[in-house]
Amino acid sequence: MSVAPNSPSHPEMSKFVDISQYMKQLGANARMAAEVLAQASPKIKNLSLHEIAQVIDSQRAAIKSANLKDMTQAKSDGLDAAMLDRLLLCDDRIDAMTEGLRQVAALQDPVGEISEMEYRPSGVQIGKMRVPLGVIGIIYESRPNVTIDAAALCIKSGNASILRGGKEALNSNQAIYDCIKQGLKQAGLSEHSVQVVNTPDRAAVGVMLNMSESIDVIIPRGGKSLIQRISKESAIPVIKHLDGICHVFIDDMADKTKAFDIALNAKTRRYGVCNAMETLLVAASVANNILPDLIDAYVEKGVQLRGCNRSILFNPAKITAASDEDWDTEYLAPILSIKIVDGMDQAIEHIKRHGSHHTDAIVTEDYTKARSFLRRVDSSSVMVNASTAFADGFEYGLGAEIGISTDKLHTRGPVGLKGLTSQKYIVFGDGHIRA
Amino acid sequence: MSVAPNSPSHPEMSKFVDISQYMKQLGANARMAAEVLAQASPKIKNLSLHEIAQVIDSQRAAIKSANLKDMTQAKSDGLDAAMLDRLLLCDDRIDAMTEGLRQVAALQDPVGEISEMEYRPSGVQIGKMRVPLGVIGIIYESRPNVTIDAAALCIKSGNASILRGGKEALNSNQAIYDCIKQGLKQAGLSEHSVQVVNTPDRAAVGVMLNMSESIDVIIPRGGKSLIQRISKESAIPVIKHLDGICHVFIDDMADKTKAFDIALNAKTRRYGVCNAMETLLVAASVANNILPDLIDAYVEKGVQLRGCNRSILFNPAKITAASDEDWDTEYLAPILSIKIVDGMDQAIEHIKRHGSHHTDAIVTEDYTKARSFLRRVDSSSVMVNASTAFADGFEYGLGAEIGISTDKLHTRGPVGLKGLTSQKYIVFGDGHIRA
Repeated sequence: MSVAPNSPSHPEMSKFVDISQYMKQLGANARMAAEVLAQASPKIKNLSLHEIAQVIDSQRAAIKSANLKDMTQAKSDGLDAAMLDRLLLCDDRIDAMTEGLRQVAALQDPVGEISEMEYRPSGVQIGKMRVPLGVIGIIYESRPNVTIDAAALCIKSGNASILRGGKEALNSNQAIYDCIKQGLKQAGLSEHSVQVVNTPDRAAVGVMLNMSESIDVIIPRGGKSLIQRISKESAIPVIKHLDGICHVFIDDMADKTKAFDIALNAKTRRYGVCNAMETLLVAASVANNILPDLIDAYVEKGVQLRGCNRSILFNPAKITAASDEDWDTEYLAPILSIKIVDGMDQAIEHIKRHGSHHTDAIVTEDYTKARSFLRRVDSSSVMVNASTAFADGFEYGLGAEIGISTDKLHTRGPVGLKGLTSQKYIVFGDGHIRA
Repeated sequence: MSVAPNSPSHPEMSKFVDISQYMKQLGANARMAAEVLAQASPKIKNLSLHEIAQVIDSQRAAIKSANLKDMTQAKSDGLDAAMLDRLLLCDDRIDAMTEGLRQVAALQDPVGEISEMEYRPSGVQIGKMRVPLGVIGIIYESRPNVTIDAAALCIKSGNASILRGGKEALNSNQAIYDCIKQGLKQAGLSEHSVQVVNTPDRAAVGVMLNMSESIDVIIPRGGKSLIQRISKESAIPVIKHLDGICHVFIDDMADKTKAFDIALNAKTRRYGVCNAMETLLVAASVANNILPDLIDAYVEKGVQLRGCNRSILFNPAKITAASDEDWDTEYLAPILSIKIVDGMDQAIEHIKRHGSHHTDAIVTEDYTKARSFLRRVDSSSVMVNASTAFADGFEYGLGAEIGISTDKLHTRGPVGLKGLTSQKYIVFGDGHIRA
């Protein structure tokens, strides 16, 4: 474990012998804060979110100046333009942060919700009450706005959080955390309700992933390599998705207009998002009717096309041959692979082999095939006659999302406030005893 | 990894170089079977359960003869009476197994259930469909009837399963598995839908706990040391409970009759079960009114009493002093610890420090305290005016239970068929695209 004593940018580290001791202190703080936060009223939690928003608003200059330090360092370290863009905190992004806080405050509080209270033959009434998970560890890259998103969702769902952002954003995250602490205090909540790891040392992540006694779930946000590393190393359950290799299958019973609109929207609405379509599957019998117009539309939008042998024939000048690797690639870019299949069975087989359990859609007017596709495709979102772009916490009515799960345990698909909670059983009796 | 070639009692092992290769083959088999089982109709799954019941019924002699081998070996190995009793398969227990299969067949099939389909402002309709988890690994001790319980719940919930029972029950489990295989086949399902690990080598468990690629969740059933070891070693998420240190708190606003009935039932209905009360907490102001009768009733039932300083005074002849350790002990025996507390806050504090998040109950007529206790006590079941004995899958209407979870991730409390499933999002559109 490395030591980071008396480092000027994170003075509090000097109190600890090493990273491990420092992280364990955060863990212990979080456990205590979680107990109180789990019982906090919606009023207090919402108040804290509004207070944080207000402090951020009033501390704009400090936040931007801290961000400038990070940006200057990042530029001198030679970070690429995309990374610099993600790191930047301009006024618009600060506005988005405060707006996000207010939106989360406006959401229904999930904690304490009682449901399914039913009388049993014994006479007792049994149902469920929604409870927070406890302490959530969030590990992300150098996008400082994630600090606010994550803090807001965790506070609202009654969970204490330990946030570990990319080291390039250390100053920005600390400036934001100063606002969070002040807002929490103004609302009467412990500043340990949210804690931001205050060291650039990567060893902190390794320690964090083994703090099972003080962290209940880890949510990584960022690129695939980060998420892969975290799920491999973590001794704590991880809520995650690795890839978004999403498919649209145009069935032979598809409506041509719907197929055109959906296939175009799913690819070209935004390229760098996990719910974008990466592979288009088209039933052979309708390819002739549907593909030519679609190919023209993609080309016009500047989308590179890579096809199977059969699809290349539709426009050999514009479609290059897809390699085996293409079917397993999340492009996150204006590139699309196209495959002509004999029918739905082959489409489902392709999705099974190459998909990532994220989002897959069928376009069809056939009732039985729609039903069968929904049941057979093992993805966290399965759609009929809708664009994969709808796979999103806001579109699903979750209000906000902290991530997407392509796993099956605990939660699947976009994860909102309810995904950060569990349910305990509650039992009402009138002196009932069991025979 | 140890090698067990040509061992007479498990001939198929001879095909494999070592335990690791054998276990991985089971894993690969299970993955393939899980895909088919996930799509199987309720009719086929129920048919398989009835067929298995019938085969077991007709193979009674073979099962009992295999069990006799295990019993003889166990006796010569000097197993204690309790273990021998758990290992024994008599006609009554075989009847209970077939009855259990038929009960599970009669339960509602959870797979494919569609719920919460709501229209969103965008016009798409979004909801959830229930899906199996995939492959479930179950590790248990030498109670061969668990083989049938576990297999039945996994088949019904559409999950393939890998079952690893205690080595003392190897012959019994294989005889039962022969019946399962035949029943599955008769219903047209793969015999790999359920697989029983066929080696006494404990190394099999170690391999199993690291097969993340082929097992989605591990459920250990048995004593605390088994479960502790498994949760520590497992690289796969574990659904478990360690202890059942359950409390009943008699509040100063308790109805005396209800308090008496509940406190007596929660302790004395059955002693060796995880939902039995281990510690009785009594508000000081009503102790005088309630404790003397209760103490007499416990003594009459042969329950040993261990008390705090204040409670001993009520019957120094019958109550011995509780040690610090007592408050953290799951007796699973006719022993009860009693503590007098100043009021609800102190009772909740005691439960927080000494409880095991299993089941805790308050007896009170006070509305506000009932509500507060329900919210503040962080246990998988929290009860008002009901005996902790109700914490049970059958009593909760789950039909059957594969275990109890005192954790929060994925599922809490008794785990039935739904606890063995997840939910994916499904989206219905009419050609909808996202703006």
